[in-house]
Amino acid sequence: MSALPVTPPFDVNDPVFRAHEGGKLGVHETSPLRDAHDLSLLYTPGVAEVSRAIAADPTLASRYTTRRNTVAVVSDGTAVLGLGDIGPLAAMPVMEGKAVLFKHFADVDAVPVCLETGTVDEIVEAVARFAPTYGGINLEDISAPRCFEIERRLKERLDIPVFHDDQHGTAIVALAALFNAALVVEKRLEDLTVVVSGAGAAGVAVSSILVSAGVGDVIVTDSRGIIGPDRTGLPEHKESLRALTNRTGRVGLLGDALEGSDVYIGVSGGTVPERDLMRMAPRAIIFALANPDPEVHPKVAHKFAEVVATGRSDFPNQINNVLAFPGIFRGALDSGARAITEEMKLAAARAIADLVDEPSATSVVPSVFDERVAPRVAEAVSHLARRYG
Amino acid sequence: MSALPVTPPFDVNDPVFRAHEGGKLGVHETSPLRDAHDLSLLYTPGVAEVSRAIAADPTLASRYTTRRNTVAVVSDGTAVLGLGDIGPLAAMPVMEGKAVLFKHFADVDAVPVCLETGTVDEIVEAVARFAPTYGGINLEDISAPRCFEIERRLKERLDIPVFHDDQHGTAIVALAALFNAALVVEKRLEDLTVVVSGAGAAGVAVSSILVSAGVGDVIVTDSRGIIGPDRTGLPEHKESLRALTNRTGRVGLLGDALEGSDVYIGVSGGTVPERDLMRMAPRAIIFALANPDPEVHPKVAHKFAEVVATGRSDFPNQINNVLAFPGIFRGALDSGARAITEEMKLAAARAIADLVDEPSATSVVPSVFDERVAPRVAEAVSHLARRYG
Repeated sequence: MSALPVTPPFDVNDPVFRAHEGGKLGVHETSPLRDAHDLSLLYTPGVAEVSRAIAADPTLASRYTTRRNTVAVVSDGTAVLGLGDIGPLAAMPVMEGKAVLFKHFADVDAVPVCLETGTVDEIVEAVARFAPTYGGINLEDISAPRCFEIERRLKERLDIPVFHDDQHGTAIVALAALFNAALVVEKRLEDLTVVVSGAGAAGVAVSSILVSAGVGDVIVTDSRGIIGPDRTGLPEHKESLRALTNRTGRVGLLGDALEGSDVYIGVSGGTVPERDLMRMAPRAIIFALANPDPEVHPKVAHKFAEVVATGRSDFPNQINNVLAFPGIFRGALDSGARAITEEMKLAAARAIADLVDEPSATSVVPSVFDERVAPRVAEAVSHLARRYG
Repeated sequence: MSALPVTPPFDVNDPVFRAHEGGKLGVHETSPLRDAHDLSLLYTPGVAEVSRAIAADPTLASRYTTRRNTVAVVSDGTAVLGLGDIGPLAAMPVMEGKAVLFKHFADVDAVPVCLETGTVDEIVEAVARFAPTYGGINLEDISAPRCFEIERRLKERLDIPVFHDDQHGTAIVALAALFNAALVVEKRLEDLTVVVSGAGAAGVAVSSILVSAGVGDVIVTDSRGIIGPDRTGLPEHKESLRALTNRTGRVGLLGDALEGSDVYIGVSGGTVPERDLMRMAPRAIIFALANPDPEVHPKVAHKFAEVVATGRSDFPNQINNVLAFPGIFRGALDSGARAITEEMKLAAARAIADLVDEPSATSVVPSVFDERVAPRVAEAVSHLARRYG
């Protein structure tokens, strides 16, 4: 990155830059260090007893070290927000922000770990090597399709939860919103045809959780149109999607996918033309999740849909990952879960949806500041972990 | 490690285990997160401005991210305290303790990073890959001779300070003590013959800093005796030591090294027989630094030496790395130093020694709780960094 010559103009007194001065996280000791006696407990010679005990019984590390409550927020900076491949240093503020959210909403001690980018092998090797330090790994802002294989291989290799939030956080909250939106429009999940626009990290995960949740049919589109029987030479993750979705074998462009469909979920960026949205079924649902610019403005979307959600805080129905990831990891750490299973994700989505007492067109998800959310999600996750190991 | 079947008996109510419950470190947010406005500063959309600025000018990462004040305490658990190769999980309490000391003495935010052990290549690759996250790397408790090459290669590759504390922390504090001990026994540094017993991480670093500081001659011994002209098939680090030390080409065992020598520095563990110490010059100096059991008990050492120091807190003259490493990294972070140079180490040793107003046989180093130490060491390091870049 050091070759880029131009620093965009910015004001060091801007509230954003002031809030970032010196970074957004600090570390503190949790036991007092006042004198030589404390020192002998926290460091040598006392600490040797604890190390010896863990060497003999590694499970004690979950009780007597920061592994108990610490999650690494890992990125190589290749797909940061809408900024793209900006590298590990520029990714740091985002990962720190994520760590702040972990702490604030679920009292999880999260730390950023930003990696020089590399091949899938190199990223997997690095993460696996430092993994003993942490109780969980939250992957973040890693470019597709690398992110799929990185996550899959780390899940196989590690005995702690590995969770790519851009995929599963988005998928869980979108499903939660869909549970309630379906109630509002009085349609059953198994009768819905959902169009997912975008086959990147979020698109893949949203599509697969919808299938797991029993949605009638899912049709995925990418920049070339519907992922259907006519498409050849697809990369592996799109081949997998094709096998899971599009039961009726539709072909064509986004508009063809939307013909008679009940739900549009945009996770692609770009815009969706009104003439395409016009083809949706009555009482439609639109989730336009690109940030900060939704694929269709909420005011326009309402012309075609009864329920509209975006990623933005300045409109009703904000679909924000923060409703999911803090509670997911809280639950996993509390229960010693070794993985975040598909069942846990479905249960988390259900828990989020159930916190909305009376779903309506303007209320299909709880507020991101609803303090009940993370504990409920945690409970759902830890219940399953304890019950099914 | 999970194959070890027996957990040694320990009492969960023992103060040591209670002090370790849940780990010894926590993470906290440094800017308030109270509402949607704060969220928009600390996370999206505000954070994107900061990421964009850093992408264009990576030096801004030192101002606007936790890199500013964060050091990784990195170990693979292969040489932990006197416990040996106990693995990364069992190393965690030690690395957390180190992080507590960093915070307490120098307000450095340090975090443990414990690695599955591997080849030198694998460790170097992993550390280099996650290095963008941190403002410095403190290597700790990595077995010799791997530690030498790991440190050397990381120093070549990274533009942040890399410091193997078992080597250089020990060396700096031993040199500080020797500065004052030489005053007490009224001998000049350049007239001293120093025997260093042990050619591991600490022995190598102590020997080389003594040579840099202008000590008359250094003679190193290992388990087979003096590293001298008669030794063949030496590993690389001992070959380097031989080139630096033993100007008069002594051969023989430890007792032969001690014949007429002024200083014994034990960094080997084991014990040194009285019949060997008996051969030292008048007004001798003994630093028996093995912990918790010095190579010679201080009471016995006093029969042969005027100044005696150990690593223990229950005798005078405690030679403890904590006098060095917090201030070293504080100074490096404050000045943006890209490396810890030999000059910085010498200046740090001088700063520590100078804090003892009136050196005496029972006072050659400041107390580990002397709050002036870290700031003075930091000042010495940052002065050199700013002056010579």
